[in-house]
Amino acid sequence: MKTFKDIFDQIRERKRKIALVGAEDLEGIKAVNEASNAGIVDALLIGDEKKIKDNLAQLGIAGKFDIVHADDAASASETGVKLVSEGKADILMKGLVKTSILLKATLNPDWGLRSGNLLSHLVVVEAKDYDRFIGITDGGMIIRPTLEQKVEIIKNAVSFFHKMGNEMPKVACIAAVEVVNADMPETVEAAQLATMWKRKQISGCVVDGPLGFDNALDPRAAKIKKVTGEVAGHADILLVPDIHSGNFIGKSLDYCAHYTIGGIVLGAKAPVVIVSRADKAEAKLASIALGALAVEEDS
Amino acid sequence: MKTFKDIFDQIRERKRKIALVGAEDLEGIKAVNEASNAGIVDALLIGDEKKIKDNLAQLGIAGKFDIVHADDAASASETGVKLVSEGKADILMKGLVKTSILLKATLNPDWGLRSGNLLSHLVVVEAKDYDRFIGITDGGMIIRPTLEQKVEIIKNAVSFFHKMGNEMPKVACIAAVEVVNADMPETVEAAQLATMWKRKQISGCVVDGPLGFDNALDPRAAKIKKVTGEVAGHADILLVPDIHSGNFIGKSLDYCAHYTIGGIVLGAKAPVVIVSRADKAEAKLASIALGALAVEEDS
Repeated sequence: MKTFKDIFDQIRERKRKIALVGAEDLEGIKAVNEASNAGIVDALLIGDEKKIKDNLAQLGIAGKFDIVHADDAASASETGVKLVSEGKADILMKGLVKTSILLKATLNPDWGLRSGNLLSHLVVVEAKDYDRFIGITDGGMIIRPTLEQKVEIIKNAVSFFHKMGNEMPKVACIAAVEVVNADMPETVEAAQLATMWKRKQISGCVVDGPLGFDNALDPRAAKIKKVTGEVAGHADILLVPDIHSGNFIGKSLDYCAHYTIGGIVLGAKAPVVIVSRADKAEAKLASIALGALAVEEDS
Repeated sequence: MKTFKDIFDQIRERKRKIALVGAEDLEGIKAVNEASNAGIVDALLIGDEKKIKDNLAQLGIAGKFDIVHADDAASASETGVKLVSEGKADILMKGLVKTSILLKATLNPDWGLRSGNLLSHLVVVEAKDYDRFIGITDGGMIIRPTLEQKVEIIKNAVSFFHKMGNEMPKVACIAAVEVVNADMPETVEAAQLATMWKRKQISGCVVDGPLGFDNALDPRAAKIKKVTGEVAGHADILLVPDIHSGNFIGKSLDYCAHYTIGGIVLGAKAPVVIVSRADKAEAKLASIALGALAVEEDS
């Protein structure tokens, strides 16, 4: 798969259902309705029934989606999580509820969707200049991951790339420079991750680092800087040092490179889709598609 | 000024001279020769005279530039710095010498080019989607600036934007989120910088933060996220939290958005141009032009 269209084609057959938590949100309903029109997912709307019905009427699609009433954000979140647990929906999506409330419900020890894995955020961009999907992680969830958390973040992203049909994704642990510099712990940890991969502590992928953004993605830059290895110039997944640096890459690729971009929260038993109001319609659609693809095959 | 062509036009009249330190470097000579052909600067080549002459002959431009012999990188750096001090050149440019050696000479307390200001790196991109130059700082010099250093970094960038004709540049202190989050010191410092500006501790510009990359640059994103103020949606300069995050933005804008991009080291008595081998020819030309523009008017 190289484009979001490929993903849409694949998930159409699977008929996944997305639970929009806090469906009082007109923008959220618009997004799931577009996804439904594209045949990507079916939807279940959770929240204040009256407001949701008003929204559906306003969009001229009264009765199109099932509604489950909930009085407030916490109960909508609990309801959404339980519906996914029971197999009545496959994907959680944030509507008009705070991310923290939805994630708290997702991680509830009694009835939540904990899998034992760390929750992490993955941005996937259709990088038209590089003829492949590029993953950026984690620019949305873990503020400043430890080495152990970076391993978990890599595992989540790699597992997702497997679902995209890339059986051995190349992971570049990127930093401002491609050499180990003791004054930059980010480069030291990148080298540690590369060694952990060599010792088979990380599998299902190829990991190298430190690499620069340029020589990770671009074979010409790798060649000129004499950076060798399987990953240099061919990275599929960029592991970034912290939330700020990852967020900036994603936003740059969206607002300046105009790549189509989606985001997904991985690591729970079910994928969680969190879109921003400022996201373009195509980005919301892409994120929903990533959510549908992330659902376990055997669920 | 909105494009590098505007900068070229302005600096052509000034006839600045660039000192290429470590001119044994064929790529470096190519870059200054292109700049010379574009009428942007004249050049002075410092390094092993025989090797430099061989390079010039290889390019078919024997005798085009003056050569000053130096035995090694340290002496070439010292010679370059002294020539600039004496007014025989206006701009330092890194050729085949290590950045650390050139900067050490630049900062020599006896004969260097110290001005009392912090040295910082500024990337300037011709952001065609936003119809203005965008500065990104510091993605190349200070690894993890303190609050005090961030103030100095802003001052250096603002002073440069004044030279570009922007008398009141808008500075966005950016982070992954546009709200103050105690778990993200980057957002706390961004708010502190905004307050320092309000109290007139920073002048000649408008400073706001924390802002996101998107709502700093894009009025639509600012409006949707209800981020108000003079800077939101109209930022000229993005102050980033650390070298990695700034480097990634610059590289994203170069390798994915295909903006024309230049870089410059500011804060010394003379500008220092440091280009990378992997930089495209147009990026090298842009960096040399920024160097010429950064020269003090009255020097």
